[in-house]
Amino acid sequence: MIRIIGIDPGLRFTGWGVVEAEGNRLRHVADGVVQTDSAESVPERLRVLHDALAALIEAHAPQEAAVEETYVNANATATLKLGYARGVALLAPALAGLSVAEYGAKTVKLSVVGTGGADKNQVGLMVRRLLPGATIRRADAADALAVAICHAHHRASRNAWSRSAALARPA
Amino acid sequence: MIRIIGIDPGLRFTGWGVVEAEGNRLRHVADGVVQTDSAESVPERLRVLHDALAALIEAHAPQEAAVEETYVNANATATLKLGYARGVALLAPALAGLSVAEYGAKTVKLSVVGTGGADKNQVGLMVRRLLPGATIRRADAADALAVAICHAHHRASRNAWSRSAALARPA
Repeated sequence: MIRIIGIDPGLRFTGWGVVEAEGNRLRHVADGVVQTDSAESVPERLRVLHDALAALIEAHAPQEAAVEETYVNANATATLKLGYARGVALLAPALAGLSVAEYGAKTVKLSVVGTGGADKNQVGLMVRRLLPGATIRRADAADALAVAICHAHHRASRNAWSRSAALARPA
Repeated sequence: MIRIIGIDPGLRFTGWGVVEAEGNRLRHVADGVVQTDSAESVPERLRVLHDALAALIEAHAPQEAAVEETYVNANATATLKLGYARGVALLAPALAGLSVAEYGAKTVKLSVVGTGGADKNQVGLMVRRLLPGATIRRADAADALAVAICHAHHRASRNAWSRSAALARPA
C-alpha cells in the first residue's frame, strides 16, 4: 500500500489530493485547494504555498508525490508565474524526502479517462467514479487527484513489468 | 547599516552576493555561485538550490534580499525552468523572514552602470569598481552583487525621499 499526494500547481490556486493505492485499488484520503492572495507580493504568496504544502505533507504523510506539468502558456510572463508555483510544488515534497514524479496533462488524461484529449469535466467525472464516496468540490482538487491516480497506475504497471522481467530472467 | 543578499537565479547556475550598505557607502561581504547537476531530477536540483540559499542566508545573516527578474526567453520550456529557479530564489529568503525586492535587468544596469543597455562586461567592471578589494571570480556572482547594489541605491533614495517628504510636511 502506497500513499500518494498529487499536486496541480498554480500561483493563485494549487489543487492537491491524497490517495492510497494498493495495486489497482484506490482509496480517497483528502483533497483541497491552496489559494494565495493576489494582493500580496509574489515571494509572500510562494511562502504561503510552500508552508501549506509542507503542512499537508506532514499531516497526510504521503510516501510519494506526483506533480502535473504546467500548461505552457503563450504569454511568457504567465509562464514564468506558473514556473514559480510549479518550482515550489516540486520543492516542497523534495524537502520532505519524497520522490517526485512529473506527468504531462495528456498522460494524466490518458491514464484516468482513456483519452489524452479529455476535457476537465470528463476528468472530474472519472476521478469521482474511481474514488467513490469522496466529495470533491473543486475542479483543481479533482485535477490533483487525477495526477495522483495517474502516478498510482504508472507505479502499478512499472511494478508488474519488473515482476514479469524478473520471472523471465533465466535462473 | 544594512546587509543585503542579491540573487541572480537560474536552474543550472544561481549567482549570489552579499553587500553591506550604509547610505551610499558599500562593502563587499561574500559572493559565489550555486550550481546544480543537470543529470539530477528537477525536484532534486530545486532542493539543492533551496538548501544552499537557506544555508547562505543563515551564514551571512542579510536583512533584506533582492532578486533579479529573470530574462523572459522566447522558448516556453526554458522560461518555465527559469521560473522554477526564480520561484525558489524568491521563496528561500521569504521563508527566512527577509523582505524580498525584485528588479528587472534594465533597472539593475541603470543603477550600477548608468545605462540600461550596458553589457555583462560593463556590469562586472562597475561592480568591481564599486566594491574595491573584492575578488569576484564569476560573472553570475557579479550580476548578483549588481542586484544587491541596485537595491542598496533604491533603499537609499527611498529613505532620502521619505526624509525630504517628512521635512516638507507642514508641522
